[in-house]
Amino acid sequence: MLEELKAKVCQANLDLVKHGLVIFTWGNVSAIDRASGLVVIKPSGVSYDTMKPSDMVVLDLDGNIVEGTLRPSSDTPTHLVLYKAFPNIGGVVHTHSTYATAWAQTGRDIPNIGTTHADYFHEDIPCTRDMKKYEVFDEYEKETGNVIVERFKNMNPDDTPAVLVKNHGPFTWGTDADNAVHNAVVLEQVAKMAFIASTIHNNYTCAKKDVYLADPVPPMNKHLIEKHYSRKHGPNAYYGQEKTDEK
Amino acid sequence: MLEELKAKVCQANLDLVKHGLVIFTWGNVSAIDRASGLVVIKPSGVSYDTMKPSDMVVLDLDGNIVEGTLRPSSDTPTHLVLYKAFPNIGGVVHTHSTYATAWAQTGRDIPNIGTTHADYFHEDIPCTRDMKKYEVFDEYEKETGNVIVERFKNMNPDDTPAVLVKNHGPFTWGTDADNAVHNAVVLEQVAKMAFIASTIHNNYTCAKKDVYLADPVPPMNKHLIEKHYSRKHGPNAYYGQEKTDEK
Amino acid sequence: MLEELKAKVCQANLDLVKHGLVIFTWGNVSAIDRASGLVVIKPSGVSYDTMKPSDMVVLDLDGNIVEGTLRPSSDTPTHLVLYKAFPNIGGVVHTHSTYATAWAQTGRDIPNIGTTHADYFHEDIPCTRDMKKYEVFDEYEKETGNVIVERFKNMNPDDTPAVLVKNHGPFTWGTDADNAVHNAVVLEQVAKMAFIASTIHNNYTCAKKDVYLADPVPPMNKHLIEKHYSRKHGPNAYYGQEKTDEK
Amino acid sequence: MLEELKAKVCQANLDLVKHGLVIFTWGNVSAIDRASGLVVIKPSGVSYDTMKPSDMVVLDLDGNIVEGTLRPSSDTPTHLVLYKAFPNIGGVVHTHSTYATAWAQTGRDIPNIGTTHADYFHEDIPCTRDMKKYEVFDEYEKETGNVIVERFKNMNPDDTPAVLVKNHGPFTWGTDADNAVHNAVVLEQVAKMAFIASTIHNNYTCAKKDVYLADPVPPMNKHLIEKHYSRKHGPNAYYGQEKTDEK
Repeated sequence: MLEELKAKVCQANLDLVKHGLVIFTWGNVSAIDRASGLVVIKPSGVSYDTMKPSDMVVLDLDGNIVEGTLRPSSDTPTHLVLYKAFPNIGGVVHTHSTYATAWAQTGRDIPNIGTTHADYFHEDIPCTRDMKKYEVFDEYEKETGNVIVERFKNMNPDDTPAVLVKNHGPFTWGTDADNAVHNAVVLEQVAKMAFIASTIHNNYTCAKKDVYLADPVPPMNKHLIEKHYSRKHGPNAYYGQEKTDEK
Repeated sequence: MLEELKAKVCQANLDLVKHGLVIFTWGNVSAIDRASGLVVIKPSGVSYDTMKPSDMVVLDLDGNIVEGTLRPSSDTPTHLVLYKAFPNIGGVVHTHSTYATAWAQTGRDIPNIGTTHADYFHEDIPCTRDMKKYEVFDEYEKETGNVIVERFKNMNPDDTPAVLVKNHGPFTWGTDADNAVHNAVVLEQVAKMAFIASTIHNNYTCAKKDVYLADPVPPMNKHLIEKHYSRKHGPNAYYGQEKTDEK
Repeated sequence: MLEELKAKVCQANLDLVKHGLVIFTWGNVSAIDRASGLVVIKPSGVSYDTMKPSDMVVLDLDGNIVEGTLRPSSDTPTHLVLYKAFPNIGGVVHTHSTYATAWAQTGRDIPNIGTTHADYFHEDIPCTRDMKKYEVFDEYEKETGNVIVERFKNMNPDDTPAVLVKNHGPFTWGTDADNAVHNAVVLEQVAKMAFIASTIHNNYTCAKKDVYLADPVPPMNKHLIEKHYSRKHGPNAYYGQEKTDEK
Repeated sequence: MLEELKAKVCQANLDLVKHGLVIFTWGNVSAIDRASGLVVIKPSGVSYDTMKPSDMVVLDLDGNIVEGTLRPSSDTPTHLVLYKAFPNIGGVVHTHSTYATAWAQTGRDIPNIGTTHADYFHEDIPCTRDMKKYEVFDEYEKETGNVIVERFKNMNPDDTPAVLVKNHGPFTWGTDADNAVHNAVVLEQVAKMAFIASTIHNNYTCAKKDVYLADPVPPMNKHLIEKHYSRKHGPNAYYGQEKTDEK
């Protein structure tokens, strides 16, 4: 069942390796078939070298395995929470990509300080709060999804399809598995540039008298955020080639 | 028309990928045929994997499409402003290369602190000012060109063929598309070394009593700038092999 | 003798190169056959390009060469001390991998500030103390092993299979040579992310008034350490596929 | 003439590319035949893609071209000064490798804070002084050699076969061209690790009250320097395989 989606999810997982976002078996991609409400996800701890579409696991949104002989990714409950809470998304990605994970380890949002960020993410990349003891020890992966959803209470997940789970790493999502992987690649690049930019900024502010008054983040032009986001998204987008299904 | 130039521009765009300056469809290269006043540029949002010379778009300097069925790069108006304002240039490159873009996100010029920089760029790499609301929302890409030209009011674009657009990323130019790509590669390397050098410099100055008096930029020997730039440029250049067309 | 183990140790040494952990002939992997008490180790200063299983040297735990015509790695006495002190380990790796070695050069433990770290290492990666003059000049490589063992006096080497030797570089170990290489790869990634995270953290704290009160390390949620370590290790592990020998 | 040496020098230049130390035509390697007093060096500005042994230029120590139709590297006079001043060296390398060049741009010596450094370089990697106006504009490349030699007035160039030319980049040397390239690779790695280590060190010291008293460089155990250098060099070296010509 869902053979086409399993092939796409398998390929999307392999693309994580191609883009340098995962080592060993870290990272996982899933996708949902909204018509049937079934989710296809990578099996847990299987080597990328031998992974094939038939290894993918099919589950319903309650986590019951519908097809597949392998254990699903241990992060599956997080994916399921996101599919239930964010009705427009079709794919979810989790990685421990270097720079995004380092930002998650600091517990700070990645500031929106450039048009590369604004082209894909309308807001800062938010970081979740500390998880409580019972959240960690009872239903950890499900609660991880819950703190993500909580963090988006006043944010639009379609406009900012990425989050940092504190001290853990990033999740991204998108219209399908490919788009979620695309967003994971952009997030890592955005995280790397924000690391470099904030370090350069600190090098300059530390050498000046107003060190204690400085903002740790380089200043951004808010107009650029609106412009760049709308240049690629929404009814007035004019980046790329005109798509017939846009009309 | 301009088949040779289209092939060169297509190849120059692919070279951006080879040199690691772009991911996905980010970045674009154009070239101008000064005899006819026609510009050849990459189409918008087309994958580098399948891009071919016939995909290139030909426009006049007013932005009218003369040949081509695809939309030109969304940054085309910026390229056109540069060709009109800088009469000696033959090619323009825009990327979001990692280190140059991070410097652009800080809003700071890249200081000329080494001979690698001085071999190619006579001055600091200048960063443009913040764009105003109407500049961003009316004719954004054209105004991006205008703030670049404004920044070069007292600078020679032939001596320093690169700029950082604030919170956005670098543009470089050159005698042709290849030379503009070459300068984009050097700019990224220069930006990376200036990041590392200013961080080391900060590590030392932060540990000393005179932290508040320190210059955030390592000191440069001004004589080296003149020497290295003239070693590679102008009538007394003596780097490389003697070219018959130099006489 | 021990042909299978020699092949595995040879391959594990080559894997260090594949994972980008060593340049030239730096780094070495060994493994022990606990039944016979014999150790197989890489020869000293032999190029990875030509290294083959028959080049491996077999020694007993007292350092007597049992088989092999080449000199064993100059770090062999360190490996032997570890095999004698840590009874559960089957393989040992030494590299000068970039980020782990840089942390060793600072003399600081790598803080456990993320789940990537906690998935593999229960504690901070400890750094050994300064070695005394006689330790350096008398039996240096053996004493290097001794300061490692001393550092683990109150730690469990099976829970945290890695150490930084001060001003030198990392050693890792594991259930066999492959597992020790796996841990060396994770350690380098963990060291890189802790470098990035502590730099971002410093960029923020330096710009604020409480700079002198700040902790140099981003805060970690202790519950996550317990959860992630136990998710992959021990009787309640549920990461990966169920192994028949777990029952 | 010197066909074997020309082949080795050509290969050594290509090895710079393989090791990631140069882009475009930056960097150059030479070697000397001490018997004839003739130097073989890379031509200036020739692409590495097409470079072949017959392109190499042969000069005497006064800079007279003895064989070759191409211009020698513009840095040739620097190489010649080094061969004349340092009688034991057989090869010289110049690169603009990223991290070593960044240190040169800061004007600071690379501190000897690890055994990787001490395995190859007995002292800190020294940085030359600022060059005076007449030195830059009269015989620049020769004077570059002179400031290097001046910097080694109280140092042994055989024990520390590397230097940083201020605001420019590194030169390394060795017993032959291959050995000089080897030292260039190690220097770049050592420079990278010292960048990371000094940044981590600064992250910790900046957060503490004694920030103004801190040494910007992590502390090194001096015994390790003597031990590691002598382990690989001199009559008591015991790293690698015994060489028959050592006796």
